[in-house]
Amino acid sequence: MSVMVEPTVSDVDAAADRIRGLVVRTPLLESDRLNDRVGARILVKAECLQRAGSFKFRGACNRLLTMSQQERANGAVAWSSGNHALALAAVSATLGVPATIIMPNDAPRAKIDGARAYGATIRLYDRRNDDREAIGNRLAAESGATIVPPYDDPLIIAGQGTVGRELMEQAAEIGVVPDAVLASASGGGLIAGVATAVTARSASTRVYCAEPSGFDDHARSLAAGAPVRNRPEGTSICDALQVPTPGRVTFPINRSLLAGGLVVTDEQVRDAMRAAFDTLRVVVEPGGAAALAAVLAGQLDVPADGTAAVVLSGGNVDHALFASVLD
Amino acid sequence: MSVMVEPTVSDVDAAADRIRGLVVRTPLLESDRLNDRVGARILVKAECLQRAGSFKFRGACNRLLTMSQQERANGAVAWSSGNHALALAAVSATLGVPATIIMPNDAPRAKIDGARAYGATIRLYDRRNDDREAIGNRLAAESGATIVPPYDDPLIIAGQGTVGRELMEQAAEIGVVPDAVLASASGGGLIAGVATAVTARSASTRVYCAEPSGFDDHARSLAAGAPVRNRPEGTSICDALQVPTPGRVTFPINRSLLAGGLVVTDEQVRDAMRAAFDTLRVVVEPGGAAALAAVLAGQLDVPADGTAAVVLSGGNVDHALFASVLD
Repeated sequence: MSVMVEPTVSDVDAAADRIRGLVVRTPLLESDRLNDRVGARILVKAECLQRAGSFKFRGACNRLLTMSQQERANGAVAWSSGNHALALAAVSATLGVPATIIMPNDAPRAKIDGARAYGATIRLYDRRNDDREAIGNRLAAESGATIVPPYDDPLIIAGQGTVGRELMEQAAEIGVVPDAVLASASGGGLIAGVATAVTARSASTRVYCAEPSGFDDHARSLAAGAPVRNRPEGTSICDALQVPTPGRVTFPINRSLLAGGLVVTDEQVRDAMRAAFDTLRVVVEPGGAAALAAVLAGQLDVPADGTAAVVLSGGNVDHALFASVLD
Repeated sequence: MSVMVEPTVSDVDAAADRIRGLVVRTPLLESDRLNDRVGARILVKAECLQRAGSFKFRGACNRLLTMSQQERANGAVAWSSGNHALALAAVSATLGVPATIIMPNDAPRAKIDGARAYGATIRLYDRRNDDREAIGNRLAAESGATIVPPYDDPLIIAGQGTVGRELMEQAAEIGVVPDAVLASASGGGLIAGVATAVTARSASTRVYCAEPSGFDDHARSLAAGAPVRNRPEGTSICDALQVPTPGRVTFPINRSLLAGGLVVTDEQVRDAMRAAFDTLRVVVEPGGAAALAAVLAGQLDVPADGTAAVVLSGGNVDHALFASVLD
């Protein structure tokens, strides 16, 4: 195993330069009604409007742009339950890199069909009986393809960190330094990158991760000071936030930089998805709404003259689930 | 009646300066999947992400910012089936102007409740038996309030024109001059402002309005060269696009600047709302999706190496209707 070095804010800045023009500078939205409801100023980084529908496009883009021509010709391989798959498929299509993606056969149809629509080769596996990493490693060994990990990679983390960099830039444009910044955590790549970018710009800004109940490994690991695993029996509406334990590369960053972890219920997530629909007119998937859910549920104490910024991290959700949330 | 002068591109530029910082610079989105489907490049101005959920905020903001302190103290009055009401309520709340809005009692709940949530006084009327203009004129005469019309006002049109100004700026940032620009038409204020801003920057760009079947008064008026009325029996899913005839101030502008009018069915509108959900992750109301619907239905001949830009003009839609569209 190669040595993994934690990315610095310079790596985030380099990623921002590298991926500029290929990613959407997603808007920082605000709603009077949302502010009134929370009793503080809430800024919303609508990363669900990113290409391929989530922040994952940034990390995958940063990773593939550092591959040599020969590596690109040999292709990319990844395993993912959805958003990383979609992002890698989209980036690969843009850069002309053949991509093979290993996805669970119970992933949301929107994510499987979407990845296929970008032209990626999709290999479905059974969560209970198959080892996706073994399948991926074998495919990579056979083809010479590069494995693009979903979070435990400094270039991936630096790419995701550009979300935090943009957020702080956009807040500064309206004269605001957020008191708190929140984003969801699964493997912890997004929040690690965001925390790296945000805390370098504002030491006083507290950064929190948000997770669904039953998959609160970050909250408990941060409290314990060491990584713990989720119990296997947990279930959640947040299909994108079900990694069993914090990442090897991401956790030391998060342990060092995060102020803590917040935990939300499925009902709080549904409420946040409705609030995003009603007040911001954006489509957010369950996992993408966890940070907003934590703020709306009053889990963070934001003073009335304070500002919290939340990342809506993804928007890939099946029609039936979204309709049930609006019901 | 005062003389109404057509706004020029300088009026649009002045509006942009006036409302800057109070409006969202809504993103110009793009989706590989949408491009693939149409077989050309489609840029999407997501104005549904504007404050109060539609382009109407821009015009109302431009109008109220030109009122004197005394006029502001006396308040604003308007009649609207929804988006203009929401926008005026939101602008009034921001600027501390008392607002009274006359809305039909069968307007979407999201629009009535939303306007009330901003603190406006809402007066409901019956579409069949009441004359909303008479009610509004009486209220204005009693209170000294300023009537803020939905479209037949040069300052309103200039404010809506900032949508087109931004769109062309954002397209230029990615090196594109659109071959065509499309936006929906009801009273015609948005498309008149957009056409003023777009054609001043690019004489070769054709500007089209889009309307629902049964409310195609612009398409028929443009073809006839003179304003015609919709037949009273028409029905449409597009609650925001049901003005009976082109505006007195807007139509001469549109007759002079538009390349034509496109007409879409309810099913084409629903398809466009689904496409926006699936590929852009934005919530669009029926009337806001008409321009995208026209492009997706193949009503505009965009060459494979060409670019069409469409405005998603609003996103205020009830849960039940949106869920039925996803079904």
